[in-house]
Amino acid sequence: MLQAIDGGITAAKGFKAAGVKAGIKKSGKEDVALIVSEVPAAAAAVFTTNTMAAAPVIVSRRAVEKGSIGAVVVNSGCANACTGQQGMVDAQSMAHMTASLLGLDDDEVIVASTGIIGVPLPMGKVAAGIKQAVQELSLSGHDKAMQAIMTTDTFVKQCSYQFMLEGVPVKIGGMAKGAGMIHPNMATMLAFVTTDAAIAQPLLNQALQEAVEISFNMTSVDGDTSTNDMLCVLANGMAGNTPVEDTGSESYQVFLAALKQVCTYLAQQIVRDGEGATKFIEINVTGAGTFADAKQAAMAIAKSPLVKTAFFGEDPNWGRILCAVGYAGIGADPEQTSLAIGGIPIVQDGLGTQYDEQALRNVMAAKDIAVTVTLGMGNAAATVWTCDFSYEYVKINGEYHT
Amino acid sequence: MLQAIDGGITAAKGFKAAGVKAGIKKSGKEDVALIVSEVPAAAAAVFTTNTMAAAPVIVSRRAVEKGSIGAVVVNSGCANACTGQQGMVDAQSMAHMTASLLGLDDDEVIVASTGIIGVPLPMGKVAAGIKQAVQELSLSGHDKAMQAIMTTDTFVKQCSYQFMLEGVPVKIGGMAKGAGMIHPNMATMLAFVTTDAAIAQPLLNQALQEAVEISFNMTSVDGDTSTNDMLCVLANGMAGNTPVEDTGSESYQVFLAALKQVCTYLAQQIVRDGEGATKFIEINVTGAGTFADAKQAAMAIAKSPLVKTAFFGEDPNWGRILCAVGYAGIGADPEQTSLAIGGIPIVQDGLGTQYDEQALRNVMAAKDIAVTVTLGMGNAAATVWTCDFSYEYVKINGEYHT
Repeated sequence: MLQAIDGGITAAKGFKAAGVKAGIKKSGKEDVALIVSEVPAAAAAVFTTNTMAAAPVIVSRRAVEKGSIGAVVVNSGCANACTGQQGMVDAQSMAHMTASLLGLDDDEVIVASTGIIGVPLPMGKVAAGIKQAVQELSLSGHDKAMQAIMTTDTFVKQCSYQFMLEGVPVKIGGMAKGAGMIHPNMATMLAFVTTDAAIAQPLLNQALQEAVEISFNMTSVDGDTSTNDMLCVLANGMAGNTPVEDTGSESYQVFLAALKQVCTYLAQQIVRDGEGATKFIEINVTGAGTFADAKQAAMAIAKSPLVKTAFFGEDPNWGRILCAVGYAGIGADPEQTSLAIGGIPIVQDGLGTQYDEQALRNVMAAKDIAVTVTLGMGNAAATVWTCDFSYEYVKINGEYHT
Repeated sequence: MLQAIDGGITAAKGFKAAGVKAGIKKSGKEDVALIVSEVPAAAAAVFTTNTMAAAPVIVSRRAVEKGSIGAVVVNSGCANACTGQQGMVDAQSMAHMTASLLGLDDDEVIVASTGIIGVPLPMGKVAAGIKQAVQELSLSGHDKAMQAIMTTDTFVKQCSYQFMLEGVPVKIGGMAKGAGMIHPNMATMLAFVTTDAAIAQPLLNQALQEAVEISFNMTSVDGDTSTNDMLCVLANGMAGNTPVEDTGSESYQVFLAALKQVCTYLAQQIVRDGEGATKFIEINVTGAGTFADAKQAAMAIAKSPLVKTAFFGEDPNWGRILCAVGYAGIGADPEQTSLAIGGIPIVQDGLGTQYDEQALRNVMAAKDIAVTVTLGMGNAAATVWTCDFSYEYVKINGEYHT
């Protein structure tokens, strides 16, 4: 159904992008990104729930509420968070500069920032960067735009796919930067998705909520929710498909599946690039009374430093996993709880089994490890992705000095 | 008011203790502890909220519900957790053996275990240990009993005080073992307090709840709530004071203050001996709408791996602290939030201040560091104690293999 194609956020018809070096990052690398749609795009977004939300989050939330977006402007190297009234003025200026150069209204521009918290934006550099980015917009600008949103990510995170909506080829692509609060005060997760699908804004919004629920909201690197997190999707309709306007339609389900795929891919890539991560751990909880309970138990496991350090040590420490399920607050009963790691049953109804130790050692030595907890409380399930806790995590977050 | 004295859990009149080597610990050190009161003591206790509660927790909860206790028997080296029906039989056997040797009913004995999860108790060794401990009971047995409840604690944690209740000298003492889920599958926090105060059981229980709320419940080492946590207090009345029977009385307040002191001391010692800890961090949140909000914000800071690694690195990373307050779920407003570290104002109404960098470096280099967050939302406050996250934490929890 979904065919992987090249092009990232510029794969879909009518989207251009650029990434330029404006001198905001000390490294001198690309630090201003621009994504522009040829025609106004329906937009939906989710933002950090952190009440210390950064200025660009507040500005972009207002723009997305209007529902029609022409451009996204992003800077890395400075989060414009905890910057007070000046931060709001600066974020609005970024929208205004971009809008002026592109012939848009200010509230048709989404603004995002990532980088150090508590430091004001160098607006001269930002302004020059935006101007240059407008000049360099291109149909193959996705790679440079991707570079420009990275902070200390160790690899790029982008994908794009083609699929059919009622016989019409439609494209969707996305990029994300990740789970590196690596430089102290970094503020963190940004993801952008573009599609040329024609879809009514309320449906786009609903699809995004559904996709986020099973992708980005199912990941945890260290349990810290940043001040700048933002995921937005733009749909400009240029594929020419019959607009998706009914959540009961097959085309909505097809679009939703594509969006889920993009979001899941990007979310998993962020976890794989988690700070100091040496393992990618999938935690499946089944047999829960509700999805919320299943997720809560899976998240308790995913957030436990004791579980995460055990995986780093390749130690199948099942006591810690059961302990986390026990304090997750869902009333799990040990005598109903079973556990498998890499498909090998380790605990059956609360008691340790006689397992093949060599086989389990092999499972624990792999980079990707799946944990499955069965609760015997119902039929609901949830899957969460996380990474391990390593010396490198402490080094990255402890040794760097502001 | 409170006068520090020697004697730990045998300081109070009528309490004897012992600690013997039963061969349960691989190290060969003391691993069975016994505390006995000459006369039945009023008892109150709090237990882990983990639904995977170990067998001794279940047995002891029933005994404490009866309210009158003659002895506490503890083993280290094996947690008797996730051991199913056999675990319940073994925990009941420990109570029965102890009761028989001391002429008590089975339900007058509290049982506690700490050590590896998922492994059955070696009951032959446990039985021999209990028998020997009964023979070695003494008025100065507190030091050996302390040794016998330790697992990988790096120092002993005990204290004792004398105070006056309506002109009568009363003694109280306690011991605890800590925050070492160091050996994989360790299950963790045990604390025992003895006093010769005469106090009605319901008041003892209420005093314990009040004391726990501002001591043990205000600490976090790594956010993991163990399967075996237990704190119990025994009051045998042998001081001969007029029994405390009214929460409105001055004598209740005096007793409560003494109990709070013992609990706070032991709780702080456990944090100081947290796995790999190099710093003791006190987090004060003031200006909250309610105590619950203040505690929630303080706990969000205390549990953040990003904050904890920053303290390990002696980096005054205020962005991470504000970020944690922002996701604590209490609706904190950045423009009302201020922050001081070691008394030095770092953030005023959400904006970074110009502080003396050398003075702050000195604060961060100390072993004890106080963080104060002011929210501007009300008049409630809370204080939480935690420690930093170090390489040693990862080493302890990641390198050891089961």
